Amino acid sequence: MLGLRNPIRLIPALFLCAIAVGTLLLSLPFATAQETSAPILTAFFTSTSAVSVTGLIVVDTPTYWSVFGQVTILVLFQIGGFGIMTAATMFGLMAGRGFGLRQRMATQVERSRLESGDAVSVLKLVLAITIIVEGVVAIALATRMWLFHGMTPAEAAWDGLFHAVSAFNNAGFSTHSDSVMGYQNDVYILGPIMCAVILTALGFPVMQDIRANGFSWRRWSLHTKITVAGTGALLLFGFVSILVAEWNNPATLGPMAIGSKVLNAAFHSVMPRTAGFNSLDVGGFHDETLMVNYLLMFIGGGSAGTAGGIKVTTFFVIFAIVLSEVRGRRDAGIFNRRFGSALERQSLSVAVMAAALILASTTYIASISELALQDILFETISAFATVGLSTGITADLPPTGQLVIIALMFVGRVGTITVATALALEARDRSYRYPEENVIVG
Amino acid sequence: MLGLRNPIRLIPALFLCAIAVGTLLLSLPFATAQETSAPILTAFFTSTSAVSVTGLIVVDTPTYWSVFGQVTILVLFQIGGFGIMTAATMFGLMAGRGFGLRQRMATQVERSRLESGDAVSVLKLVLAITIIVEGVVAIALATRMWLFHGMTPAEAAWDGLFHAVSAFNNAGFSTHSDSVMGYQNDVYILGPIMCAVILTALGFPVMQDIRANGFSWRRWSLHTKITVAGTGALLLFGFVSILVAEWNNPATLGPMAIGSKVLNAAFHSVMPRTAGFNSLDVGGFHDETLMVNYLLMFIGGGSAGTAGGIKVTTFFVIFAIVLSEVRGRRDAGIFNRRFGSALERQSLSVAVMAAALILASTTYIASISELALQDILFETISAFATVGLSTGITADLPPTGQLVIIALMFVGRVGTITVATALALEARDRSYRYPEENVIVG
Ligand SMILES: [K+]
Ligand SMILES: [K+]
Repeated sequence: MLGLRNPIRLIPALFLCAIAVGTLLLSLPFATAQETSAPILTAFFTSTSAVSVTGLIVVDTPTYWSVFGQVTILVLFQIGGFGIMTAATMFGLMAGRGFGLRQRMATQVERSRLESGDAVSVLKLVLAITIIVEGVVAIALATRMWLFHGMTPAEAAWDGLFHAVSAFNNAGFSTHSDSVMGYQNDVYILGPIMCAVILTALGFPVMQDIRANGFSWRRWSLHTKITVAGTGALLLFGFVSILVAEWNNPATLGPMAIGSKVLNAAFHSVMPRTAGFNSLDVGGFHDETLMVNYLLMFIGGGSAGTAGGIKVTTFFVIFAIVLSEVRGRRDAGIFNRRFGSALERQSLSVAVMAAALILASTTYIASISELALQDILFETISAFATVGLSTGITADLPPTGQLVIIALMFVGRVGTITVATALALEARDRSYRYPEENVIVG
Repeated sequence: MLGLRNPIRLIPALFLCAIAVGTLLLSLPFATAQETSAPILTAFFTSTSAVSVTGLIVVDTPTYWSVFGQVTILVLFQIGGFGIMTAATMFGLMAGRGFGLRQRMATQVERSRLESGDAVSVLKLVLAITIIVEGVVAIALATRMWLFHGMTPAEAAWDGLFHAVSAFNNAGFSTHSDSVMGYQNDVYILGPIMCAVILTALGFPVMQDIRANGFSWRRWSLHTKITVAGTGALLLFGFVSILVAEWNNPATLGPMAIGSKVLNAAFHSVMPRTAGFNSLDVGGFHDETLMVNYLLMFIGGGSAGTAGGIKVTTFFVIFAIVLSEVRGRRDAGIFNRRFGSALERQSLSVAVMAAALILASTTYIASISELALQDILFETISAFATVGLSTGITADLPPTGQLVIIALMFVGRVGTITVATALALEARDRSYRYPEENVIVG
């Protein structure tokens, strides 16, 4: 069976199925608040955005969709998020059972301690983490919304649950037209969301490693070390940059008290890394803040989780290679470990293919619309990295532009896990090697 | 002697000297048409732009500078261009004489057929090529300007010489306020300039290889093959993209006859690769054309020549690595040769450092000015890659922004040749190797 031989190829098909079913459900008349069928492109875009846990929207979630529509969206991004976690687990199983995945993939996932014997416990763990974290966050948010934001218990429960699931899966959908801007002074709303996002954006192998080894740096895998330290560095960089750049911006942090400035800069250092909620008006950001966001979104979060982007490890592997090269070292590496040369090439390839895809999409959308280039670039990076932040142009994109964004969300979500790997499944053992010859570069 | 041990470190110092002398000369009262001393920043900017053969300007060359000033600029970019050629030769000599440069550098330059024994003939060749090409182009341009553009013989001779030297050295300076836009329908002006630029932008090792082996593909070094084939591919890509994107643009190709559209699209496929003349209004380009220009400028021309950017070889080495990775090959390579792993890392490092420098500069300039982000990005890439094209914001940059552009031109010119190499001069033979450990990326 083709599917068994290369089960990795099932993943895109499964995601496509989920998107198709979602499109169908969202096209039903009673999915919209007006009880008129949504245009097929709107349903397709929203379904893809939900399943890929991106959160870009062409229509306003709370006013355009009915309760049925909103529940459908919630289910879609929960399925999407769970699918990613499960896929990561599957790779671990395949690696353990020798389904013919190339050695590299096997080695990597094994090293991340996803082994065949752990199968059931790993699936249980995904479920347990999902239920516990979503439950705790939902209760925290719902309580706060009920007691301090004038909601009825039913409203608060729905709102809390929706934002908790959205945060846990890094989906970025909100039941508020202005995302969480209405809570920009409430640390008890933004705080739990930030915590859920930071935790899940580490990726499943890291959570697994922390569960097995606690916070013992020495016992962590290199993957966990780079992801955790890198996440810390990126959050600090984002926090300081946004705080400094936006401090006086009347459209964002300017009018706020110092405590709120700090809270919202912290929140917006977490969100571009994949979650996509916004407590500030992204369209009001200074250009230099957009640049910082481009970088943070492009890098994204941890591997094999709900986060998107090229991933923290990819970025820091490249960073370490450049540093080793500049320092004239024989090996590239970090934390007293050196990288294999296959890893170096894979990191380079992931980053270059992502950049090429984003630049080509941006160029294409620029050629079919009059939108500002910097906003288009923000949108394409946000879509590819399944972030979901926007300067506000999503609904103004021409239909083919929206199709490009749909393709970016899909490729960004399933691509870095499967497309490159699937393409590379052919055997690597060619007997003849060409002679080596080098060239002058730079 | 420190200088003898690491003669590579002399290059930045020599360039700084030339820039300082140029700044001094351009600060003299009679260097300006008004006979009042130019502001020091203006003189510094212009001198750096000329020595680095960039061509970005903060004042209008023909109206602001006197004949003395213009001659000074001409001499500066001729010295700059010759300096680069000589530096490339120097590396060849050092490699042959074992001055302690790291093996990699030595190997590369040797393979490019710059060997110690060739020293004198190589220097002669640089001089001969310079004089012959500049002479032929100058005569062609001057004749055309005299006979068909109503200039006196003296005016035509000066104009022809200035543009020929500027084109040969990829400097991009012009004695016309609108660069060569006045000749946009004259293939006998644009043609010779294009030819000179394409030839010299190949870089000296390629010219040397062609001189030694003619147009025999089989006998060419891998460096020459990649540079020539890559240049062809990039020119074709640029030509088609610009022709299609600008065909109806009323600010550029729109009003032209078909022949002129083709000529100017061809001209502007050559110029962003390093030369920086413009026959069209760059500020009027569509956004998608700007994107194409970003890419072409960033890549630049051939190594060890007057071209800037990360270089054609660097780009195609990375391209080949990604392609090999996607196809699941054991080795990365092209044209039946495989790359060494040091080459792969060096290419990655050059590209990543260039991108980081450009992004950081763009972010900084965005934070101190209200200029459009897309124009700032165009300017920083143009400066780093020593291209000299501009959407027209150079003179509007705040003083610290101009200093950043000056730094980019300098680093872009001498950096890719020397800075990284100088940093890497420390020995690579460390006895202890850390154990290998890999991570999940993407
Ligand atoms: K998201
Ligand atoms: K130039």
